[in-house]
Amino acid sequence: MEKRILGLDPGLAILGFGLITCQQSPNKAQDSIVNMQDFGVISTSADAEMGERLCTLFDDLHTLIQELQPDLVAIEKLFFYRMSSTILVAQARGVVMLTLAQHHLPYVEFTPAQIKQALTGYGNADKSEVQEAVARELNIGYIPKPDDAADALAVALTAWFQM
Amino acid sequence: MEKRILGLDPGLAILGFGLITCQQSPNKAQDSIVNMQDFGVISTSADAEMGERLCTLFDDLHTLIQELQPDLVAIEKLFFYRMSSTILVAQARGVVMLTLAQHHLPYVEFTPAQIKQALTGYGNADKSEVQEAVARELNIGYIPKPDDAADALAVALTAWFQM
Repeated sequence: MEKRILGLDPGLAILGFGLITCQQSPNKAQDSIVNMQDFGVISTSADAEMGERLCTLFDDLHTLIQELQPDLVAIEKLFFYRMSSTILVAQARGVVMLTLAQHHLPYVEFTPAQIKQALTGYGNADKSEVQEAVARELNIGYIPKPDDAADALAVALTAWFQM
Repeated sequence: MEKRILGLDPGLAILGFGLITCQQSPNKAQDSIVNMQDFGVISTSADAEMGERLCTLFDDLHTLIQELQPDLVAIEKLFFYRMSSTILVAQARGVVMLTLAQHHLPYVEFTPAQIKQALTGYGNADKSEVQEAVARELNIGYIPKPDDAADALAVALTAWFQM
């Protein structure tokens, strides 16, 4: 059965997304098949007020989910940088989780270290190693841009590897 | 002109609210009139999943705003305790700010110190002093319960004092 996994890298200014489809081969000896379907970002303007930015995020994410029809969502767990950034990201993340719940979508969460481990085999891999693993696993000849979209595909692949 | 100010003390488990109406006397020599209209809480179950709790908050806050018809919202600024609590509160706060923006409601924010200063005259007042000031300013013979509702009335009064 094909599974559509939507990876999300939530942020207030930029939310990265990436959709992969995965098919477990009925013959266990054969490899499973995973394909990249779409990736990109939802962005909100730093000039707009917080509430307006959250509305954009909410509306655009509803539209995206309707278009992409995922079966499962994979999200990067909130990472701590400066406290002020963390609060902004957490506020955006609240709106993302509200939207997923309104669509009755199940989700799984992974820490950055879990994602690095899943894609490269070690939890301290740097960004470019993770991005190269994303391109290799998805059999595409390029690194998805911007980084937020590549990160979203990385978390979607992590969900797939864990199944 | 009468102004309806809705104070909110956002949280994930309990969101306190308090509505006051304020009327500036046309004769500047006379006192302005402020009245308590309503207070209470929106609560979400700790047994429910995060997304479900955010949905409850979103739906109940929409209903509350439709019922109370505020002109202005006053919110307590996010206060840092433990990082994990701050993230939960910030996620709830993102949903609150989304909802206010969907109703095109203007809002003002105050830190806990600003609220204490406005109500008691000094920024280090303790909780009971603030609650007594709320009861006194609103001319009600009791401390509104629970604390979250009293806090919401306190932030609404702070907005009024600053006008």
